[in-house]
Amino acid sequence: MTDATATLLVSCPDRQGLVAKLANFIYTHNGNIIHADHHTDFAAGLFLTRLEWQLAGFDIPRLEIASRFQPIANSIEANWQLHFSDTIPRIAIWVSRQDHCLFDLILRQRSQELRAEIALIISNHLSLQPVAEQFGIEYVHIPITKENKAEQEAKQLELLNQYQIDLVILAKYMQILSSDFVSQFPNIINIHHSFLPAFAGANPYHRAYERGVKIIGATAHYVTEDLDEGPIIEQDVVRVSHRDTTEDLIRKGKDLERVVLARAVRSHLQNRILVYGNRTVVFA
Amino acid sequence: MTDATATLLVSCPDRQGLVAKLANFIYTHNGNIIHADHHTDFAAGLFLTRLEWQLAGFDIPRLEIASRFQPIANSIEANWQLHFSDTIPRIAIWVSRQDHCLFDLILRQRSQELRAEIALIISNHLSLQPVAEQFGIEYVHIPITKENKAEQEAKQLELLNQYQIDLVILAKYMQILSSDFVSQFPNIINIHHSFLPAFAGANPYHRAYERGVKIIGATAHYVTEDLDEGPIIEQDVVRVSHRDTTEDLIRKGKDLERVVLARAVRSHLQNRILVYGNRTVVFA
Amino acid sequence: MTDATATLLVSCPDRQGLVAKLANFIYTHNGNIIHADHHTDFAAGLFLTRLEWQLAGFDIPRLEIASRFQPIANSIEANWQLHFSDTIPRIAIWVSRQDHCLFDLILRQRSQELRAEIALIISNHLSLQPVAEQFGIEYVHIPITKENKAEQEAKQLELLNQYQIDLVILAKYMQILSSDFVSQFPNIINIHHSFLPAFAGANPYHRAYERGVKIIGATAHYVTEDLDEGPIIEQDVVRVSHRDTTEDLIRKGKDLERVVLARAVRSHLQNRILVYGNRTVVFA
Amino acid sequence: MTDATATLLVSCPDRQGLVAKLANFIYTHNGNIIHADHHTDFAAGLFLTRLEWQLAGFDIPRLEIASRFQPIANSIEANWQLHFSDTIPRIAIWVSRQDHCLFDLILRQRSQELRAEIALIISNHLSLQPVAEQFGIEYVHIPITKENKAEQEAKQLELLNQYQIDLVILAKYMQILSSDFVSQFPNIINIHHSFLPAFAGANPYHRAYERGVKIIGATAHYVTEDLDEGPIIEQDVVRVSHRDTTEDLIRKGKDLERVVLARAVRSHLQNRILVYGNRTVVFA
Repeated sequence: MTDATATLLVSCPDRQGLVAKLANFIYTHNGNIIHADHHTDFAAGLFLTRLEWQLAGFDIPRLEIASRFQPIANSIEANWQLHFSDTIPRIAIWVSRQDHCLFDLILRQRSQELRAEIALIISNHLSLQPVAEQFGIEYVHIPITKENKAEQEAKQLELLNQYQIDLVILAKYMQILSSDFVSQFPNIINIHHSFLPAFAGANPYHRAYERGVKIIGATAHYVTEDLDEGPIIEQDVVRVSHRDTTEDLIRKGKDLERVVLARAVRSHLQNRILVYGNRTVVFA
Repeated sequence: MTDATATLLVSCPDRQGLVAKLANFIYTHNGNIIHADHHTDFAAGLFLTRLEWQLAGFDIPRLEIASRFQPIANSIEANWQLHFSDTIPRIAIWVSRQDHCLFDLILRQRSQELRAEIALIISNHLSLQPVAEQFGIEYVHIPITKENKAEQEAKQLELLNQYQIDLVILAKYMQILSSDFVSQFPNIINIHHSFLPAFAGANPYHRAYERGVKIIGATAHYVTEDLDEGPIIEQDVVRVSHRDTTEDLIRKGKDLERVVLARAVRSHLQNRILVYGNRTVVFA
Repeated sequence: MTDATATLLVSCPDRQGLVAKLANFIYTHNGNIIHADHHTDFAAGLFLTRLEWQLAGFDIPRLEIASRFQPIANSIEANWQLHFSDTIPRIAIWVSRQDHCLFDLILRQRSQELRAEIALIISNHLSLQPVAEQFGIEYVHIPITKENKAEQEAKQLELLNQYQIDLVILAKYMQILSSDFVSQFPNIINIHHSFLPAFAGANPYHRAYERGVKIIGATAHYVTEDLDEGPIIEQDVVRVSHRDTTEDLIRKGKDLERVVLARAVRSHLQNRILVYGNRTVVFA
Repeated sequence: MTDATATLLVSCPDRQGLVAKLANFIYTHNGNIIHADHHTDFAAGLFLTRLEWQLAGFDIPRLEIASRFQPIANSIEANWQLHFSDTIPRIAIWVSRQDHCLFDLILRQRSQELRAEIALIISNHLSLQPVAEQFGIEYVHIPITKENKAEQEAKQLELLNQYQIDLVILAKYMQILSSDFVSQFPNIINIHHSFLPAFAGANPYHRAYERGVKIIGATAHYVTEDLDEGPIIEQDVVRVSHRDTTEDLIRKGKDLERVVLARAVRSHLQNRILVYGNRTVVFA
């Protein structure tokens, strides 16, 4: 536990003395800050910060930190989260038939690039069950039809509870989640196969081809009740030309989808993301 | 004239023997091909090509090449253009108040990166007249209001005729051209301050900021009757973050706009662009 | 076989009529060209071309094409290769302990992005044998020491012969091949973990960190007798900052290495690469 | 003066409580921090920070801030700088014959993207004097030969003193400064026409062409006594191909040089750069 750190993510109305106040809380209890990032959105009048410090030597016991910080948070009207680096988040990966993001996430988790436990794979198809078996991960097949959607989502929620899932990753899961589901489980990252807001909706690569664009992109975002409208976490692009067919765009897009999704998940797992309004701050 | 070249841009229904047929036309008349690029759009069943050869030694007099090529073009149902490298195109740059693209185009033309004569600057404002004077370029002020638009466009068309303009460059010209105008003068390149089709329309940087995107772009395209919908010639992007204000996006966007517009204009001036449907082939 | 194509890669001294001559060879035998790319290196006085045509309908039997083309090649003093799209190349992947490129190549081959058979994995370590087993690929462990190097290379060459290998991919194989080996088996692609020629040699990420660069890169190249000096096929880069530790550079570099190597291998397998001098033409 | 800010750049050995200590200095004197960035280089055991706060309301008079901060700096063994946003730095641009960076810097300064006064242009040639005249900037011609170099450098130093220059920008100044000069005037930014450390030295574009690279770059760095070895501030790259001649590389390189130099100068003028060892921290 000696290397373990605590991370505070705080957003509050901007005012004088916030950096000092928060740093003092840690310093006066003998904490050693190893990362401190602040951002002020002057348009929104909002101060956002991420503070990470070593638990070794910190004189508040881990379980009491939250309650000791609460009065400070109240005094600055803060939204805040507290995370510990040695708590390993449990994730569920949702897929349909495409395997490129699934393989990518599994391999990155295995090489410890992503610090998490992949507790569960959920799919509306059976196609990727062999991948799950290959790596010894639980695979639950939940087929979705128009008729059974509500009932199946209930089952999915139950599974998330049962497996104590902290984060759902839609890794090319080609079903739309209901508003109801999203409101009950808000920690969901999706990879969208276009440079949002361009080509929101279905078949973005076909539409990119038809429009004759010279660059295509991919977008990782948190899922909200508005499809393709959630807070953007990460985007990247690749150059294409008239020589690229729709199939080429899809192939090049896959490489983008993999890295963009992986970067977003990594930032989330490192507690580097603060959402406010429909925007994100991703601390470097 | 020894170094002068001729360039054929041809598009026609795809069939067997097109490369041979076109290359033979040049070879049998003793022409030396220095660039030959072909592209087949299998989905559209279309063959597109660009052939450039040295006029020195070519045994058809320059003025007869077109009429001698016409029968071949007919036999393959081709759309085609013939250009000579020593014909210097005459361009008109249209601006409003922003000067970054105007300066950029003038300086590139002066350093011979753009092979053209800047015959005319047209603006709906007086602000950039000093720039025109600084470089000794004709500047015509044509203010536009809702009421006088049709009449002013007539005046603009007259100027394009009078100055024998081959290409109009909208270098941050903040007025919309009427369909009527565009149908009468189709050679117009515009720089759009977003990664089209995202953020078509007004105030793209403000909307990019609000949407919280992580990358912004710019798009150079030919102008058609549908605003922001013309064939895309070139695009590029730059990474942004939560730290960038709308002003930062505008500043970073200016750098994009300059290079994207300049690359598109250069490709056009080198006769490297073929438009088909709403798409472009930009030969390398 | 109806969809199969033939591809000619030709380089020869530049002279008049080459495009016509080569296109006529195909056209007069009723071949339908589907891709034709040409490049002239005026400095070197060299013409380079890639012609791909449908075998269906071509009136020279496949086995006679080479002998029928030979006189034409002689007349233009050409170096040339002839490939058929339905001949599946056999590749050997060489690895040491890192698995990211190996996994990537296997998964791309399985998703048919790379058209080849992975006939063999050779390693100087045992670490990645489980990966080979997972995917049912032959794995041969050939440990290398200073003392046994010559003898082990003889064994490696024998394996390449025995398995009829067309292409060796050094997918993070951390041993240097002898000049002797390279001269006997010249079809080798390596991924170098830096933006060559910067940081040639060992530990590029550590040296990139020390030098404080703001961008890192990776390079795929053919292996020649001069270490890190072979013809470059593909390169790409990623932005880094003072916040990135050496470990971050290594992690970001892995993503680069994967895509850069995969793109190079794909271009090679599609017979799109011509080497001349120490340079490559990679036809789009 | 209401909008004016003060900026502290501090580097010191890493220890507990630094964020709190520095923030408290500002907070207890009623300062409102608007930007606070910290970085810890754990390998070097170094803490680096940039704090910017509003002078309005701050209860230490501007002229006393330095002396009041000195004891704190001493207690943490800090190197530090204090800047005020309403002090406009005076810059000298040094050029030879190429004008692209000079024009770019002048135009950015005029559009207030660069907050500085261009007090002086120095050149070893007369070629760009007309540009200086066009914009009404002082131009001093100081031709350099092997024989007169020491003497001319003395004259240059005198000019820098006389014009009270804070920053020298080598905007394609094709002469090497002596160690002696650099030690007497250390605030110099150079744009190097390659992706350092690749192609250090002369003729990088020719060498990039010969090596057949697929990407070229440019590097802005502080000038030190070791040529091309100073701390890197900013780099960027652009993709090239076999179709690009050396002239194309030079043309594409110019676009890079302009934006890379401009970004570096802007970061410097905003007091965002801390140099330590041979590295920079560029605060976002």
